[in-house]
Amino acid sequence: MRKASITIKEIARQLDVSKSTVSRALRDSSEISEETKKRVIELAESLNYSPNPIALSLLRNRTQTLGIIVPDIANPFFSTAIGGVEDIAYSRGYHTMIYQSHESYERELADTRHIAMRRVDGLIVSISSQTENHDHFIELQEQGIPVVFFDRVSESTPSHKVRVDDYKGAFEATEHLISRGCKCIAHIAGPPNLSISRNRLKGYQDALTKHGIEFHDEWVVSSEYNQAGGTERAYQLMALKNRPDAIFAASDRIAIGVHWALRQLGYRMPDDIALVGFSDLSISSLLDPPLSSVAQPSFEMGQLAATLLLDLIESKSTPAAFETRVLTSNLIIRQSSMKELVSN
Amino acid sequence: MRKASITIKEIARQLDVSKSTVSRALRDSSEISEETKKRVIELAESLNYSPNPIALSLLRNRTQTLGIIVPDIANPFFSTAIGGVEDIAYSRGYHTMIYQSHESYERELADTRHIAMRRVDGLIVSISSQTENHDHFIELQEQGIPVVFFDRVSESTPSHKVRVDDYKGAFEATEHLISRGCKCIAHIAGPPNLSISRNRLKGYQDALTKHGIEFHDEWVVSSEYNQAGGTERAYQLMALKNRPDAIFAASDRIAIGVHWALRQLGYRMPDDIALVGFSDLSISSLLDPPLSSVAQPSFEMGQLAATLLLDLIESKSTPAAFETRVLTSNLIIRQSSMKELVSN
Repeated sequence: MRKASITIKEIARQLDVSKSTVSRALRDSSEISEETKKRVIELAESLNYSPNPIALSLLRNRTQTLGIIVPDIANPFFSTAIGGVEDIAYSRGYHTMIYQSHESYERELADTRHIAMRRVDGLIVSISSQTENHDHFIELQEQGIPVVFFDRVSESTPSHKVRVDDYKGAFEATEHLISRGCKCIAHIAGPPNLSISRNRLKGYQDALTKHGIEFHDEWVVSSEYNQAGGTERAYQLMALKNRPDAIFAASDRIAIGVHWALRQLGYRMPDDIALVGFSDLSISSLLDPPLSSVAQPSFEMGQLAATLLLDLIESKSTPAAFETRVLTSNLIIRQSSMKELVSN
Repeated sequence: MRKASITIKEIARQLDVSKSTVSRALRDSSEISEETKKRVIELAESLNYSPNPIALSLLRNRTQTLGIIVPDIANPFFSTAIGGVEDIAYSRGYHTMIYQSHESYERELADTRHIAMRRVDGLIVSISSQTENHDHFIELQEQGIPVVFFDRVSESTPSHKVRVDDYKGAFEATEHLISRGCKCIAHIAGPPNLSISRNRLKGYQDALTKHGIEFHDEWVVSSEYNQAGGTERAYQLMALKNRPDAIFAASDRIAIGVHWALRQLGYRMPDDIALVGFSDLSISSLLDPPLSSVAQPSFEMGQLAATLLLDLIESKSTPAAFETRVLTSNLIIRQSSMKELVSN
């Protein structure tokens, strides 16, 4: 189906000028008269001339394009953060191309290589839960394409990073459950490869320790950050001889799976069992009972990541030091965890 | 930050061979010895050589890349359809780049131009609710980049199209409400620019006519395909002196906004008012009461659109005629519309 594309040569032939004149006219060079520029541009438009992107990029050494890789665009946390990236990118004259890794290291690697091939000016990424080797990001940086991480950051890659205070969010969620009288608090953690999973687990453990509550290995299980995993792990926890009276889930997608399982199994929230999630997705407040959750400023995280990346791209020099910006999480208490306090 | 990229010239210099030898070795040409190919490839890898994408694309006239434009990746209907596109694209050796129009004609236009600049092999698109002029798609096709539409198709653009039977889905949803004894059935339609909105409205109207139920202008209102619109339109409908006893919403996102508004206003579903949506998003079954909805095979729609597009790209000739594939929708009845039947 592809037609031969219109070239600068063709425009030069039709106007009987040199290729270099056409090329300089299209670049708005001051060496070319306004009259000639007008003729070149009009003909280029009428022929539907698309400038060769590499020619442009060689001229300016820029493509005005950012790549974004997230594990899963269907996760509202990521789609909202992408909205934040786009908001800043568009306002500064950049396009964005979105890729998803589907939680696969191989896909993330293929996406990164495609991005290098297509010569974007920079990459914003939240890594897949299967990624243990981070060399592909370092290679991209060595090719002159800066990388900024958000939420799921690479600890081993020197770069700017934007995340929330996962430790504090998890600590406060667990402390809230303790304050409602829960004594047997289980945690469904995320995949241990991800620093967000490890930080949330640590926050949970430290809150228990602070309040002198015993830590049970059997009450900590791990799941992918999705609904199906939450349902399976809820079955496992509620099947224990020694059942928990509260579950803190490392994400709302996990918590939504738990919520569904608990209702199915006949438990009432929060009386039989209290539940808290992490990210505060917009649907969490629509569940019955509405889900308590640790809110993350996802749109702002995307905006900040884009700002840091564009500053890197537009500055001519490597920054003296890379920054890690930690935004504040915020516990939103709803009915799923508002257990009645029984006086002793 | 950008470093000078490694060129074929540099590889040729270091190996003391000609540029043409390097270039042919990288293309795995049979004119070059295996020994030389091995030396060239090893050095290219150790230098992190990225082939110039335009050079490659000139060689093959292909970029092995598909563009996808949807109104909103946060809408699970679109993210699932994108999953279907990626499934087929990856299995046939293509990459995908995702763009979102945010329901804006200007953004859709800018995305289309960026896609033309970046030379994708083809485009899969579901148009924005603000798009009335479809010339940008025709221009893309004139540049040799085939376009396939899914769900929100352009009626005026000659191309392959994939959609569901919106008319039949809406007809059946309305007939189901009639069969549960509803007599005052309101419809929250989508933006009238979109053919899916018009077809769903027509299905609703024809079902009323078939069953001799009066059509009231005041019971048909229109909303963007989002939750906030559904909430606003539910307020408007329930404020009418002559209140409806059922609402058929043109999408689940609209219906979720209605569901929330009705609970807030103190109505019980389905006894006070019955509700049916369209698309059957996975969260619809988690609402309380669970939402009845017309299911669309979104993943399959994406797969089919990708298959049609790749067949266009890989065939050397323009097809004799473009096809419109209409997939079957399927009414899923849940509690939100299961009104008790009162015997007369």
